[in-house]
Amino acid sequence: MSPDGRDPEDRVDPTEDGVPEPVIDKPTELTGEISMLPPEEASKVAAEIRAVAELRGIDTDVAELVELQKTGPIPTVSKIEDDDALSAEELRDAWPLLDLEERGDGLRVLPREDAEDFFIALSASDQAALLLHFRAGQRRQWMRMLEPDDVADLIQEAGEDHRDKLLRLLDAPTRKEVTALLAYAEDEAGGLMSTRYARLRPNMTADEAISYLRRQARDKIETIYYAYVVAPDQQLLGVVSFRDLFAADPKKVVSEIMETDVVRVTDEMDQETVSRIFAEHDLTVVPVVDMTGKMKGIVTVDDIVDVVQEEATEDAQKFGGMEALDMPYLASSRRDMIRKRARWLTILLIGEMLTATALGFFQAALDEVTILALFLPLIISSGGNSGSQASTLVIRAMALGEVRLADWWLVFRREIAIGIVLGVILGAVASVRVLVWGWFGAYQHIHGGDKYILIGVTVAISLVGCVLWGTLMGSMLPFVLRRTGADPASASAPLVATLVDVSGIIIYFTIAHLILSGVLV
Amino acid sequence: MSPDGRDPEDRVDPTEDGVPEPVIDKPTELTGEISMLPPEEASKVAAEIRAVAELRGIDTDVAELVELQKTGPIPTVSKIEDDDALSAEELRDAWPLLDLEERGDGLRVLPREDAEDFFIALSASDQAALLLHFRAGQRRQWMRMLEPDDVADLIQEAGEDHRDKLLRLLDAPTRKEVTALLAYAEDEAGGLMSTRYARLRPNMTADEAISYLRRQARDKIETIYYAYVVAPDQQLLGVVSFRDLFAADPKKVVSEIMETDVVRVTDEMDQETVSRIFAEHDLTVVPVVDMTGKMKGIVTVDDIVDVVQEEATEDAQKFGGMEALDMPYLASSRRDMIRKRARWLTILLIGEMLTATALGFFQAALDEVTILALFLPLIISSGGNSGSQASTLVIRAMALGEVRLADWWLVFRREIAIGIVLGVILGAVASVRVLVWGWFGAYQHIHGGDKYILIGVTVAISLVGCVLWGTLMGSMLPFVLRRTGADPASASAPLVATLVDVSGIIIYFTIAHLILSGVLV
Repeated sequence: MSPDGRDPEDRVDPTEDGVPEPVIDKPTELTGEISMLPPEEASKVAAEIRAVAELRGIDTDVAELVELQKTGPIPTVSKIEDDDALSAEELRDAWPLLDLEERGDGLRVLPREDAEDFFIALSASDQAALLLHFRAGQRRQWMRMLEPDDVADLIQEAGEDHRDKLLRLLDAPTRKEVTALLAYAEDEAGGLMSTRYARLRPNMTADEAISYLRRQARDKIETIYYAYVVAPDQQLLGVVSFRDLFAADPKKVVSEIMETDVVRVTDEMDQETVSRIFAEHDLTVVPVVDMTGKMKGIVTVDDIVDVVQEEATEDAQKFGGMEALDMPYLASSRRDMIRKRARWLTILLIGEMLTATALGFFQAALDEVTILALFLPLIISSGGNSGSQASTLVIRAMALGEVRLADWWLVFRREIAIGIVLGVILGAVASVRVLVWGWFGAYQHIHGGDKYILIGVTVAISLVGCVLWGTLMGSMLPFVLRRTGADPASASAPLVATLVDVSGIIIYFTIAHLILSGVLV
Repeated sequence: MSPDGRDPEDRVDPTEDGVPEPVIDKPTELTGEISMLPPEEASKVAAEIRAVAELRGIDTDVAELVELQKTGPIPTVSKIEDDDALSAEELRDAWPLLDLEERGDGLRVLPREDAEDFFIALSASDQAALLLHFRAGQRRQWMRMLEPDDVADLIQEAGEDHRDKLLRLLDAPTRKEVTALLAYAEDEAGGLMSTRYARLRPNMTADEAISYLRRQARDKIETIYYAYVVAPDQQLLGVVSFRDLFAADPKKVVSEIMETDVVRVTDEMDQETVSRIFAEHDLTVVPVVDMTGKMKGIVTVDDIVDVVQEEATEDAQKFGGMEALDMPYLASSRRDMIRKRARWLTILLIGEMLTATALGFFQAALDEVTILALFLPLIISSGGNSGSQASTLVIRAMALGEVRLADWWLVFRREIAIGIVLGVILGAVASVRVLVWGWFGAYQHIHGGDKYILIGVTVAISLVGCVLWGTLMGSMLPFVLRRTGADPASASAPLVATLVDVSGIIIYFTIAHLILSGVLV
């Protein structure tokens, strides 16, 4: 079935009702050494990587870890320490600074078991890059270490071009599973799930269930600690924890022990929603069902930790005013980085050009009362700063599910009150500064400097206006974005600041005009 | 032992070697109903809360969930639906909008078991507020639902004043455990850990170990799925998964089955480091040891999800230019919110006042060449925006452990190159705008408008300078903060923007002076 005919495990093993049982994937061909470097080269590679690792090892966190492993004695049969050997910890330390070649060598220098663990714990994009870097003959053994859900992620990272080539490395049943998973978007529950979960029938006794699970435990299933009870048509009936099964009367049947009120997610649910459900219910694993309630797989909490980190990073980068990087900082190319940063900077710059237009309108006032220019940056920045506070609060609260679209009116009312108070505080502080400096004659040589009292009043009132406006813009923009289907996190600090800058200029000069021409005051 | 003499479970049950075995806390007094509201009032409360929940239920995420529970049939013995009854889902929806009184009533209207689950899943601060709100006679039963680590969090949230009162609600062994946990800071591994883990001796057989765990499974231990093998002096020797124990030859002893190379954390390790170790090693549980390698407890991954969310929220809020809120947005008081936001805004305003001082120095130039003022906001904002991008990248990379203190030089070199390219791009775009507008005579009535070509050159060069400077400030400030022991996330978008504003003015006017006076060009 596989192109090179080397695949002895291509067998399908359906159970009585068509549920493909997890296949025992005997790693026959994995017994060969992965470590391929000749000894003298291996020790050279190890030394180089160790040097890189030490360079980075100055940081306290790592020092703490390393020290701990020294002081915390493990007084059992420990392996004989080979001074030349590279440790997984050292490789992990050096990892971000290594190129692909060095990474591959590093893996091949590690003890076999460590190399496997290390490879499995890597991000999907690192795994994909390494796999494509390895010689074709080696790929199969690395690929087979991974669970189907991880293989699916890897293939998605590798891109369309390599898809078929990589799929061909798998045995037939795994290939089928992976192909099914690939149908889901990466950020859907279906893209996160594992299809290898423990399943039970409702009419088994506790004793039967335990020995059935014992058998499943030897297979490559994700967890035996939660088993899902499914009907012959794959409807999810309930969940039973191994612990409850274990503590129950051995004669009781599963349907009496199971919990029927199961928190579940659908296969097309967004991963952010899935992570929120995990947090709300303090789950360690959740079943995934399709729209008709048929069991599809499970999502485990260790994948959710990654999702939460990933989403927080994306949101932070968007909030910082750029596109999400989708890669570790040190691993992304300069070219890519510049492209992702320049696009937003240019858009913001073009938006910011409106400030020049706005100032152009007030050019006569500027010529006459030059002192107004002195306080311009101060006023528009304060508006931007208060907007940045408000938008970060609303974006985070939305990400955590604390605030929803329907709450916009609540937030609006709150932020009006808060914006006015904040504006009054800042206005008071700034006007004191203007009045004191003015009193001491700091502005007497500037056009309009003699009117410093009126300027002080202008600055104070403008700050109230700009801070209130900034606060409202910052808090409402995420709602507007979400309403239109965009990501609320795009209401970035720079975007809010840019929007507030233009309106801040208009507010400032309008108030100055009203006050200085005697309409106000 | 307890002040009101209602405590029948005050017994200590030390094992042969002084390890206090987890105490079976028979909830005898919990069998009484918690639901205390008379029926007619209960249905009124339920209706009110449902109304609030519906108001918020417009959001898509929730709609998805609710719909799922309708379409996904649960074809087993399901409880008879009482139309009047409030569901946990409805209460969760309405929760952020309810006051303390309504929350308490809501809990008492829920079916007993749901109320327990709901209470346990609440945040520690919500739990603390509710507990203090309940009548003294009711507190004990709610408190006893919680695990020691959650009780410790609750007491920490309730504050010093209530500490003794709350501790007195516990039975003696739990009180002892909780008091030990309270010695740790909330954000240390010790503050996250549970002391109720499954433990084994190295010389037990697999069969003995399984029945020993079966006994422990009935107690309130956090997980039986990973058991820790400890020596009589509490040194951690290894870990064994239940699954391996289960699959092993029953006659084998634990020390042959266990994994001795255990990833562990120390009790005083920062929670951010702990969460990084979880992510790096894809763990679901990690043992906590003290500096001498003695086993103290375990941290489970469900707590880590909360930690990761919490840290991301704190970082986001700091990056948005305010103090971390430490509370959900809608739950925090206006007073508290204003205090936390006003402090930073005022500090930034005072920093921003330096822009007025800087502009004062260049007042003569401004008077003469008013057109320079037109492009001032554009130039300083672009510096701030590029700084905000750079700092968000470095802060996130630090939080994820991708970039460490020792990498500053790497980042510095990268950002110089990127900053120059970004500056050239923005400078080109902006100068085109100045030249085109100038060519069409837009600036001819403004002082200095005739020199628009020189102004265009000034704007272009200033942008290169400001963007480069902003990029370097933004990327290096997190390193400086970390080096001095502060949180890198405090290198907020507003702080970077403020710092860049002042220097941006100096860069712009200095370049303008050099060009317009003919020194440059």
